[in-house]
Amino acid sequence: MSEHIELIPKNTLITNTPEEGRQLAVKMARLIIKVTQPDAEVRGKLRPIYAEDASMLIAIGQTVATEFATIAAANNYWR
Amino acid sequence: MSEHIELIPKNTLITNTPEEGRQLAVKMARLIIKVTQPDAEVRGKLRPIYAEDASMLIAIGQTVATEFATIAAANNYWR
Amino acid sequence: MSEHIELIPKNTLITNTPEEGRQLAVKMARLIIKVTQPDAEVRGKLRPIYAEDASMLIAIGQTVATEFATIAAANNYWR
Amino acid sequence: MSEHIELIPKNTLITNTPEEGRQLAVKMARLIIKVTQPDAEVRGKLRPIYAEDASMLIAIGQTVATEFATIAAANNYWR
Amino acid sequence: MSEHIELIPKNTLITNTPEEGRQLAVKMARLIIKVTQPDAEVRGKLRPIYAEDASMLIAIGQTVATEFATIAAANNYWR
Amino acid sequence: MSEHIELIPKNTLITNTPEEGRQLAVKMARLIIKVTQPDAEVRGKLRPIYAEDASMLIAIGQTVATEFATIAAANNYWR
Repeated sequence: MSEHIELIPKNTLITNTPEEGRQLAVKMARLIIKVTQPDAEVRGKLRPIYAEDASMLIAIGQTVATEFATIAAANNYWR
Repeated sequence: MSEHIELIPKNTLITNTPEEGRQLAVKMARLIIKVTQPDAEVRGKLRPIYAEDASMLIAIGQTVATEFATIAAANNYWR
Repeated sequence: MSEHIELIPKNTLITNTPEEGRQLAVKMARLIIKVTQPDAEVRGKLRPIYAEDASMLIAIGQTVATEFATIAAANNYWR
Repeated sequence: MSEHIELIPKNTLITNTPEEGRQLAVKMARLIIKVTQPDAEVRGKLRPIYAEDASMLIAIGQTVATEFATIAAANNYWR
Repeated sequence: MSEHIELIPKNTLITNTPEEGRQLAVKMARLIIKVTQPDAEVRGKLRPIYAEDASMLIAIGQTVATEFATIAAANNYWR
Repeated sequence: MSEHIELIPKNTLITNTPEEGRQLAVKMARLIIKVTQPDAEVRGKLRPIYAEDASMLIAIGQTVATEFATIAAANNYWR
């Protein structure tokens, strides 16, 4: 793992709104892919593969849902 | 990620009923696919692929179940 | 999504018994497939595919388990 | 769904020990497969398929883990 | 299910340390595979298959993560 | 399982920051792969396989998300 890749932007799970929490979930999911495959060129080649594959798009949705569950709990669901 | 795609309709996890919460879970799952593949034409081509594939339909169900778990907790299960 | 498909029977997560909660989990999982593929004929063709595929049967079990986790929490585990 | 298949033995999530809770998780996972594929002959043919497939054995483990999480919470982790 | 296979060593989820909890998660995941495939010879043949398959190794990690979540909660996260 | 592989660095789930918690999630996920496949040479051969496979990268993200959920709860979400 490159020590220089920030895994959680602003180093906090707390956000002002559910929408921002959802954006954070998307970013956190992407940063794990970045840290596992740090080569931007390779990631660039993979992007059209998953973005045009129904099965992979669904799997991305599953990962974001899991990240979001944590963020939502951290924010007491923005109640 | 396009900044212009709204990820959580009305920017809240709170709904009046379980039924509305379930609909929100479905929408949130779909919006992640939209933000990952913003091209409506590509998404249109993928729709019949997953809608006629038993395995992908099950996977969509898994994602919705995960989103719904968060929404249900946010609403104290509408008790 | 067809607005006319009911996603949660009786619009509640509360059930009298664990057994009924489990039945609700099965129904909720099925209704997501219905809303994603509203064509009954297509669903009818998919049924024997997943019902005779060990891998898909296991995946259905995973989805039901996730739905049930939410229902069980909603009912305070019927303690 | 056949109405005659019992989905949760004894209609309770409460068990005396973690071991019994784990056995219940295994049974609950199997009963979902049974209710989705009620034909015992078909299930009999599927058994050697998943029991000799590393990938499916792992997937069964994932489902049991999810069921067990619910049962363990219901029992306050047998603390 | 063979009644003679112990599914949870020492019949408790409580451990002294996170490290021991993690080891328990690994063991519990393996015991589900054992109970589903009780034939040691078959399991022996499957081992090099999953141990040299990146996709299956990741899936094992997912299952262990799920088991560990339950164990960690049972131990109040060893706080 | 080799008894000599440490599964949780420093034997604690508590971290100072979300960023450190996220790094721990990545490490814990990797250590499960290590304990399942202790041969460094084999792991070295598998690395380029998953690092250049979109589907596996997504699956790794799912596992890390699950590990992180536990770590975040252990730390009360660093609130």
